[in-house]
Amino acid sequence: MTRSPFRHLMDTSELTKEEIRRILERAHFWEEHQASGLAPFTGRFAANLFFEPSTRTRFSFEVAEKRLGMQVVNFTPDVSSSTKGESLFDTVKTLVSIGVEVAVIRLTDEQELLFLIKQNPGCAIINAGAGSFAHPSQSLLDLYTLVKHFGDLTGKRVAVIGDIAHSRVVRSNLWTLKQFGAEMIVSGPEEMRDPEVERIAPYVSFEEALRTADVVMLLRVQLERHQGKLFSSREEYHRRYGLSAERLKIMKPEAIIMHPAPVNRGVEIADELVEHPRSKIFEQMKNGVWIRMAILERALGEW
Amino acid sequence: MTRSPFRHLMDTSELTKEEIRRILERAHFWEEHQASGLAPFTGRFAANLFFEPSTRTRFSFEVAEKRLGMQVVNFTPDVSSSTKGESLFDTVKTLVSIGVEVAVIRLTDEQELLFLIKQNPGCAIINAGAGSFAHPSQSLLDLYTLVKHFGDLTGKRVAVIGDIAHSRVVRSNLWTLKQFGAEMIVSGPEEMRDPEVERIAPYVSFEEALRTADVVMLLRVQLERHQGKLFSSREEYHRRYGLSAERLKIMKPEAIIMHPAPVNRGVEIADELVEHPRSKIFEQMKNGVWIRMAILERALGEW
Amino acid sequence: MTRSPFRHLMDTSELTKEEIRRILERAHFWEEHQASGLAPFTGRFAANLFFEPSTRTRFSFEVAEKRLGMQVVNFTPDVSSSTKGESLFDTVKTLVSIGVEVAVIRLTDEQELLFLIKQNPGCAIINAGAGSFAHPSQSLLDLYTLVKHFGDLTGKRVAVIGDIAHSRVVRSNLWTLKQFGAEMIVSGPEEMRDPEVERIAPYVSFEEALRTADVVMLLRVQLERHQGKLFSSREEYHRRYGLSAERLKIMKPEAIIMHPAPVNRGVEIADELVEHPRSKIFEQMKNGVWIRMAILERALGEW
Repeated sequence: MTRSPFRHLMDTSELTKEEIRRILERAHFWEEHQASGLAPFTGRFAANLFFEPSTRTRFSFEVAEKRLGMQVVNFTPDVSSSTKGESLFDTVKTLVSIGVEVAVIRLTDEQELLFLIKQNPGCAIINAGAGSFAHPSQSLLDLYTLVKHFGDLTGKRVAVIGDIAHSRVVRSNLWTLKQFGAEMIVSGPEEMRDPEVERIAPYVSFEEALRTADVVMLLRVQLERHQGKLFSSREEYHRRYGLSAERLKIMKPEAIIMHPAPVNRGVEIADELVEHPRSKIFEQMKNGVWIRMAILERALGEW
Repeated sequence: MTRSPFRHLMDTSELTKEEIRRILERAHFWEEHQASGLAPFTGRFAANLFFEPSTRTRFSFEVAEKRLGMQVVNFTPDVSSSTKGESLFDTVKTLVSIGVEVAVIRLTDEQELLFLIKQNPGCAIINAGAGSFAHPSQSLLDLYTLVKHFGDLTGKRVAVIGDIAHSRVVRSNLWTLKQFGAEMIVSGPEEMRDPEVERIAPYVSFEEALRTADVVMLLRVQLERHQGKLFSSREEYHRRYGLSAERLKIMKPEAIIMHPAPVNRGVEIADELVEHPRSKIFEQMKNGVWIRMAILERALGEW
Repeated sequence: MTRSPFRHLMDTSELTKEEIRRILERAHFWEEHQASGLAPFTGRFAANLFFEPSTRTRFSFEVAEKRLGMQVVNFTPDVSSSTKGESLFDTVKTLVSIGVEVAVIRLTDEQELLFLIKQNPGCAIINAGAGSFAHPSQSLLDLYTLVKHFGDLTGKRVAVIGDIAHSRVVRSNLWTLKQFGAEMIVSGPEEMRDPEVERIAPYVSFEEALRTADVVMLLRVQLERHQGKLFSSREEYHRRYGLSAERLKIMKPEAIIMHPAPVNRGVEIADELVEHPRSKIFEQMKNGVWIRMAILERALGEW
């Protein structure tokens, strides 16, 4: 059996519109066949290397791998030789030597991941969210959620609210949403603005964002980073930039709520809105599994 | 395929005698068919969330899940978003979103677990031992071990010895053993007595307990909690309340020894008695796998 | 079904030449059948207990177990009852009670492992590298790599360079390599010599080792242990005992490079030589999976 070459995924900007469409189609296939027992990659090995904590992304990839029939090894920094100072390349090359074909990696420093890909350790590398740089699987599951809800995205306005400057989600979404005809705007605290993002997605007032958007996408606030500096408290952030029942009323009647999660309940969004009928937050997580199955198929060159 | 509703398990007191009998029957079925390769839940997902350390309970559930064919994700606090302050509900709801159907949870605070069940995250919740409140799977495996050994339990006297006040095992056993006609008594240090328990299980002297019981069930002493306060040393506890070869002699000739483990050898029980022919300690662990397979079947509504 | 008795593996010195030959044959079988989907131990359980950090050995065993069809439980000290002071015997006996048939263990203290085997917990015990005592699976994969490369080893000279005194690899290799007719020599810093080893493997100068060996096997330097004492820096070690492009030139033209890994790049060996065509370092890791599958087969008594 000859195998197609591996395909890395560092960011969505590497993907053509055609490739993205293919990923959405395959995600749809897996969603439709979720009870089929199809497991095309039985006996093949994936490794998850998370150097930053994560619940949803890590387990979502693990479930996607196992649904495809793969065997999974989970690398956590503390139980491994990384305490012996081994380089990322040597760690991944080791995993490749013992049979791993795809490595799903979350790192703080995206440069390290780009360098790893350049060194070519011999397996597919999937970026599971690098620092504030990119988060391709999150962006693709956002897109899938939107396309499932709206069908055609042409002219739909997506407002991203919050810490734009530190968000890996917003960067990855700029590319994918634009490709599918959606328009992006941003809002949030002055101190969290990002001039580079605003060249593509204009900054508007929070009120204008709420009033005009078809999708209100709230970003997690890194409270531990900002508290006592930008904001005196959780409550203050919520009062100024959080989505409340009150503010929901000024949103367009058919507009939906999204959030990459984990949510700070009562900060970015009022507790009672997280599971509101117009919130797609847990739907996004569900879709994440199908999208990641599609990403893994692409990574292994098996379309 | 329509699926039956999930069934949580917070404590044995929720179970009717009929349900307990059913669990024992299914445990027996799995013990009988352990080499059959039967794996009815292939492709379905379980999650284990242990917020307190555990060897036997955690691995016993993991083995039970895998024997049933399930895929398993193991959540440990340090590798997950819990460091980002996410609530238990949101963590479990996330796992449900990515496909988990049953969550096995060990927590210190049983109120948190009761609250989670009330919030209804969308999967079956199994209590794997909450604080000093309840430990239903341990209680059911004790019962299974007793029924296998004695057949009918009517009139059998079970003496539980040790830290009654802090034991989750004793509370869960009060219900299950009484249901099957056994009589319970307790003994141990004055400072570890529990008036609530004694309303059902009378307190007797250690000597009377040993002399009259059909089952001597020793509880683990939390040495780290009591040492230097109630007892000057391990040896002192053993001298006063430990089962020694000497004390074994005053037990009824057919009486058996049990312990929920992990054992403090030389404290609750003399080293050489742990694997004594009359000790069922490792037999209890063995039975734990069959009981947990039955609990998982019930949880998933598949009887 | 009757099962053959378990076979522990503490060190290679327990193995007859015939048994070693059998392990090499079975490793070869598994390498040849790597795409066959053969999984003879489906539904059986292995446990990995690593009390010291490890990437390659732990994952290599895990992949070997899973390739054989086994279910795997991974025991890490922090998530288990070991924090409650349970003995190794009780931990392993617990795992046996819940169905584990083979335990792969890495410990600092080999005496503890020898004692465990003597206590006979009821499963096969495989030493995955104990302190500076023995590392049988590493030694067997070294041998397999050599036999694959050279065929007959008679008269081949293997030079082991570095911290001989603290190496578990060198001890295990003394036995296996001699059995197959190879000759062993050692070299490295005076302070790292080991008189016991030198009774079998003569000490020679670094230059003589390089000039006369068919295999140059470099050992990892525990920099954290020696730095600032024996050596002022990484560079100093490399200058005096590291394999550089310069020194490669004085090696025999067909001589190969080996290293048990993880490698300190730029210390024991120059960065650019790790993946040199004459380096077998990643080939060793690959072979580790086939060797460990053979060791597991032997452990379970299934030849």
